[in-house]
Amino acid sequence: MYYIGIDVGGMSIKAGVVDANGRLLVKDSVATLPDRHYSEIVADMAALTLKVMSAAGVSISEVGGVGMGIPGTINSKTGVITYSNNINFEKVPVVNEFRKHVDLPVYINNDANAAALGEAKFGSGKGSEDVVFVTLGTGVGTGIITQGVLLEGKMGAGAEGGHIALKIGGEMCSCGKRGCWEAYASATALMRQTERAMALNPDSLMHEEAEKEGKISGLTAFNAMRRGDKAAKRVVDNYIKYVSEGIISMVNLFRPDYVLIGGGISNEGDWLMSKIQRRVNRYSFGGHRNPKVYVRKAVLGNDAGIYGAAALAMKS
Amino acid sequence: MYYIGIDVGGMSIKAGVVDANGRLLVKDSVATLPDRHYSEIVADMAALTLKVMSAAGVSISEVGGVGMGIPGTINSKTGVITYSNNINFEKVPVVNEFRKHVDLPVYINNDANAAALGEAKFGSGKGSEDVVFVTLGTGVGTGIITQGVLLEGKMGAGAEGGHIALKIGGEMCSCGKRGCWEAYASATALMRQTERAMALNPDSLMHEEAEKEGKISGLTAFNAMRRGDKAAKRVVDNYIKYVSEGIISMVNLFRPDYVLIGGGISNEGDWLMSKIQRRVNRYSFGGHRNPKVYVRKAVLGNDAGIYGAAALAMKS
Repeated sequence: MYYIGIDVGGMSIKAGVVDANGRLLVKDSVATLPDRHYSEIVADMAALTLKVMSAAGVSISEVGGVGMGIPGTINSKTGVITYSNNINFEKVPVVNEFRKHVDLPVYINNDANAAALGEAKFGSGKGSEDVVFVTLGTGVGTGIITQGVLLEGKMGAGAEGGHIALKIGGEMCSCGKRGCWEAYASATALMRQTERAMALNPDSLMHEEAEKEGKISGLTAFNAMRRGDKAAKRVVDNYIKYVSEGIISMVNLFRPDYVLIGGGISNEGDWLMSKIQRRVNRYSFGGHRNPKVYVRKAVLGNDAGIYGAAALAMKS
Repeated sequence: MYYIGIDVGGMSIKAGVVDANGRLLVKDSVATLPDRHYSEIVADMAALTLKVMSAAGVSISEVGGVGMGIPGTINSKTGVITYSNNINFEKVPVVNEFRKHVDLPVYINNDANAAALGEAKFGSGKGSEDVVFVTLGTGVGTGIITQGVLLEGKMGAGAEGGHIALKIGGEMCSCGKRGCWEAYASATALMRQTERAMALNPDSLMHEEAEKEGKISGLTAFNAMRRGDKAAKRVVDNYIKYVSEGIISMVNLFRPDYVLIGGGISNEGDWLMSKIQRRVNRYSFGGHRNPKVYVRKAVLGNDAGIYGAAALAMKS
């Protein structure tokens, strides 16, 4: 049996055919063009589904189901998107709409949840039923599988780990509350921290790095630090503290087998993972008396969403 | 069918007989005397079980099972207590030991988890599968039921919501990390906040209130505030912010139906609940677009542990 995973983002719609062993056989994508009416976007999702099935040589009778990961608040039971910031979906019955085009069982969830499920089932957390997946990107996204259950909260409005507190009354977050983890640990936040440190340290190599790249990015401070810049090292050290502190909150609540880290920043790789691991070991509740939690880089990268969406269809 | 709930604390062991409708028919207690060998404590738990069964006129064939709530890290699958601070249990196979005395199925969990289950099944969260229970006492305890599952984490080491971050680098917490929610929102923390405010405000009515009580307590600031004291009002306002901020973190992760508040501070009642409710409504992720979460006082009080322990046996 085969499963279709569809990963919808603000820029592109990706879809793939995954077999029961978790091999991604074929994938393809089209532009989302998010300003269109939802019926057109869903029609493209359906057309892409048929296209990847055809490319993989898989007929509809061989497909167990279609899974979709979509950004926003998703009611997985009713198949309705409550709202989505990235694409213009509000109260959209996406499952019913999709089934007008393709007669298959359809499962839907939030894109971060789907990616977490992909990593837990086929990626760095393979074989575990207790995984916290953290994406350090524009925001801080989290997907949580605990005791084998994908955490959704009422009407899919939970698992918003980016908006747990890090520093009460601190930096303003895009959500309207001050001091969220996301306001300190996202790539966006790191860029803000880098920019401030650059203003205070006109001689820092961060200026040179930013010029080389043509902008301040999530890499600027890391690159300057590697060249021995002290101000950059302070930025990175603090950023690692911010990332770790939120992870420790997640560990104390969920005590998973793995914390998997994705998003652009995770490309800093083993060095970054080991720094976070050390803080998690030291500051998680109960110390060494409690079972160890392993911090790992997520491995599926941009395909995690496709894998996870397909996994939604496998589970059911 | 009847179920026995046993609630073990540092001071006393409580046990009760609960029927399938959640009525507590008989309850009784004995002193824990926690410095004894575990076999003696477990023998007392067994004797108390037989005593309440006898008082309720219930024979062993009418009992579906025995549930136990015990403070500490509990492996509910193996029935072993990994460790417990309040009683001197470390790596104690309490289920096997108990079954030497009473031949019934035995279920075990952390006491805060059991209390949460009690409130979710028979108390303020009756009928809901999504409840976060928060105890504001010596520490901040949390018990979480999400999508009908009692959150335990690996080997029972999760659900330590008292140790999520509130203010990175802030007040030292008993767990060895700085800035935990517990270090700001426990009754102990409120007393510390009250004491500091008293030192800064020698004319505050808090001094009079503390004298009346013979000590600074969790009531001192609340009582002085009610008499119009401004410094006390600032203490209470800040404390409510601390409590609410952690609750909002929990809401953003779990998006439950109810947040139930127990512990001594919860006796401040409706006034306190409505203050917290307002902050939760305003600052939770997604605002009014996401489903409302209701903040309520837990109602089972000291019996929540017995109810919840009995519910452990009912579930299985």
